[in-house]
Amino acid sequence: MTATIATEASPRPPQGREFGLLYAEVQQFYSRQMQLFDSFEAEPWARTFTEDAVFDVPTLPAPVVGRAALASNVRRNAELHSTSGEKFRHWLGMLDVQPQPDGSLHTRSYALVYLTPRGGESKVHRVCVMEDVLVRSSGPWQVSHRLVTRDDLA
Amino acid sequence: MTATIATEASPRPPQGREFGLLYAEVQQFYSRQMQLFDSFEAEPWARTFTEDAVFDVPTLPAPVVGRAALASNVRRNAELHSTSGEKFRHWLGMLDVQPQPDGSLHTRSYALVYLTPRGGESKVHRVCVMEDVLVRSSGPWQVSHRLVTRDDLA
Amino acid sequence: MTATIATEASPRPPQGREFGLLYAEVQQFYSRQMQLFDSFEAEPWARTFTEDAVFDVPTLPAPVVGRAALASNVRRNAELHSTSGEKFRHWLGMLDVQPQPDGSLHTRSYALVYLTPRGGESKVHRVCVMEDVLVRSSGPWQVSHRLVTRDDLA
Repeated sequence: MTATIATEASPRPPQGREFGLLYAEVQQFYSRQMQLFDSFEAEPWARTFTEDAVFDVPTLPAPVVGRAALASNVRRNAELHSTSGEKFRHWLGMLDVQPQPDGSLHTRSYALVYLTPRGGESKVHRVCVMEDVLVRSSGPWQVSHRLVTRDDLA
Repeated sequence: MTATIATEASPRPPQGREFGLLYAEVQQFYSRQMQLFDSFEAEPWARTFTEDAVFDVPTLPAPVVGRAALASNVRRNAELHSTSGEKFRHWLGMLDVQPQPDGSLHTRSYALVYLTPRGGESKVHRVCVMEDVLVRSSGPWQVSHRLVTRDDLA
Repeated sequence: MTATIATEASPRPPQGREFGLLYAEVQQFYSRQMQLFDSFEAEPWARTFTEDAVFDVPTLPAPVVGRAALASNVRRNAELHSTSGEKFRHWLGMLDVQPQPDGSLHTRSYALVYLTPRGGESKVHRVCVMEDVLVRSSGPWQVSHRLVTRDDLA
């Protein structure tokens, strides 16, 4: 009995075929999340985080906490864009997915930001590393904690 | 009987494990398609589109329609390359795959173009968004419609 | 009997759902391998190659052979970084995975190198093509042969 309970409380990380599905789900999750962010879809983007998520990124003076604050940042981005005309594209790659015994996922990936001025030349704006904790209860994956570091800030 | 026919006409979008396979197939499809394009493999590349595919891209004055016209564009690219020595690499990411009730796939992804002059410095040439309709009958996936937009053209 | 032996000696390349798992495994493998390389984890990175692996890359005067030589190169990179402060990020994409009849994998992908000086502007450093042979016995995938070509060196 004890063994059974322990197994349920600490499900084994996905092995074998399960990993194929898991890796695809996480890629699809991030693709949609980044597209929502770059399209200024504030509320749908905020809902890809848990209600009390912490977003720690060096371009902001302090970590952003909670969906309302996250959505607010996206609306500010939309205003900046409407003035500057600059387009940002956030792009993840080299996604390392590490399933944890508690069912959450730790991910570490590289994050690039491309910047294109209206009518101008595109360029690489930032090279970052992104470390997430992903959780889910009954629904889709959500970010509960995100830490971003920038390569130019040693 | 009616229910069975309806199910066959409108298969459910892939759920669960099927999505793992589907997402991998689409990634593999695009990897091969972009590599064929950058290697000037005109006919093999054109066969990754349906016979009557529409390719709508802002760098051409009008949408390209059909495999013969698509292949012709690749041969023109090969000629330009043999003169200029510039190499282009087309790179997709942030791939969002949305299975449709009719069995087709709608995809939206970011598309980068890298440019490298012979002996020179590589750079980001274009940042684009690519929206595809993918279909298949008995064989592999094929693009039936592609719309590309460029970030620098607001 | 003969048919059975032949099948075992030459397993069929993965079809159907197996491909979903395989493609995810290879992506995860490369993500971890590139992150280890960029973090100067010399020995863990070298263990992603077979003991007698050949690494043929145009930035070195001759192919590197074997794990000890591979790890040595990473330690040299770490020293260069500690002096220059420049950060490199190796990024793969457009991954084409071709399972072979002998159970190995041939992969061809695009490889980008991003460079960020301390406190400076990030840029694309190199655009490359990477062709690998991946093998495995009982454990994880390992690279037995790697050929890298650079777009700027025609």
